[in-house]
Amino acid sequence: MKNALFIMLDEYADWEGAYLASTLNQLSDWQVATASLKSTVTSIGGFKTKVDYLIPEVPQNLSLLVLIGGNSWQVKSPELVQLIKQQLISQTPVAAICGAVDFLAQNGLLTGYRHTGNAQYLWQDFSNYTNANDFREVQAISDKNLVTANGTAALAFTKLVLEQLHFSPETIKQSVELHQLGFYAYTAKYGNPYLN
Amino acid sequence: MKNALFIMLDEYADWEGAYLASTLNQLSDWQVATASLKSTVTSIGGFKTKVDYLIPEVPQNLSLLVLIGGNSWQVKSPELVQLIKQQLISQTPVAAICGAVDFLAQNGLLTGYRHTGNAQYLWQDFSNYTNANDFREVQAISDKNLVTANGTAALAFTKLVLEQLHFSPETIKQSVELHQLGFYAYTAKYGNPYLN
Repeated sequence: MKNALFIMLDEYADWEGAYLASTLNQLSDWQVATASLKSTVTSIGGFKTKVDYLIPEVPQNLSLLVLIGGNSWQVKSPELVQLIKQQLISQTPVAAICGAVDFLAQNGLLTGYRHTGNAQYLWQDFSNYTNANDFREVQAISDKNLVTANGTAALAFTKLVLEQLHFSPETIKQSVELHQLGFYAYTAKYGNPYLN
Repeated sequence: MKNALFIMLDEYADWEGAYLASTLNQLSDWQVATASLKSTVTSIGGFKTKVDYLIPEVPQNLSLLVLIGGNSWQVKSPELVQLIKQQLISQTPVAAICGAVDFLAQNGLLTGYRHTGNAQYLWQDFSNYTNANDFREVQAISDKNLVTANGTAALAFTKLVLEQLHFSPETIKQSVELHQLGFYAYTAKYGNPYLN
């Protein structure tokens, strides 16, 4: 069983992990779990999520670490930095979107990776952010084992993460393009996805 | 304070209410609450949501009732039927997406409304579904105080609900089109939404 761990803080962005988590958790060989710095976090939309793990308790040997964006990533957390660093070093896929990329920048975790994010100018005082030239003005980008995206790129982010995980183009099409086009335009283009 | 109540069951679709809930709950004069048939429900994506209310406890005088889709709407719940019926009769905006529209069809709650949904052929044995001619093959549709949509239409659904609630075109553009186009294409078309 492969396991994806989604980390979210208070005021996390409801839409950012929604497509990715639901795609993975529906597969028989994948399982999604959630973790945070406290046991219950409330999304921007007001949904109270009871997470499966606190950071010190998260399982080892993750197949994927996802950091969902939101409004609370100014937090200081050496244990969270350590967890992310460990995944990056071990070549595990890591995916961060929106405010979560700010956290990577602040803690020097973008070094060596081409990346994007919400707004690079917010990072100008981060002394550990040393590779501003690697920022790309795109919706989402994948480099080695790191995917980054801005907060309006939930589907582009999902696509690049699924590519990182070597899913088939057909699976990616149904998980991403079906929502980008909508059912009727998708069906006109490819046929009814539920009848194929 | 206006209040939106989002109802979700187990295996609810993470993405379907995400844009709408976050748009409303960020406004100073709106508050989002959640309700279900039990205290904690797990989304398709594996997120455990601790809801604010069980159905018998939900507040009166809702400004909006939203029914998020998912895989468990075959449920029988006279109290939930009663709640929805009461909102429809009182002309409160009601919005249902994906599997939640199946529940409306099964319980005769689409009568008198043009509507859409995931797949009308699933409703052919529903004796209370009496207005099949009012089905429209579109992503989302608004008729009187009811918005319905299929499960690939999270943003089109959000747009029609915000229109029901008489939000300004500018607010709707930033809540919907920003995500449809993505930050860079949106900025090229309209200017940077965070600097205006």
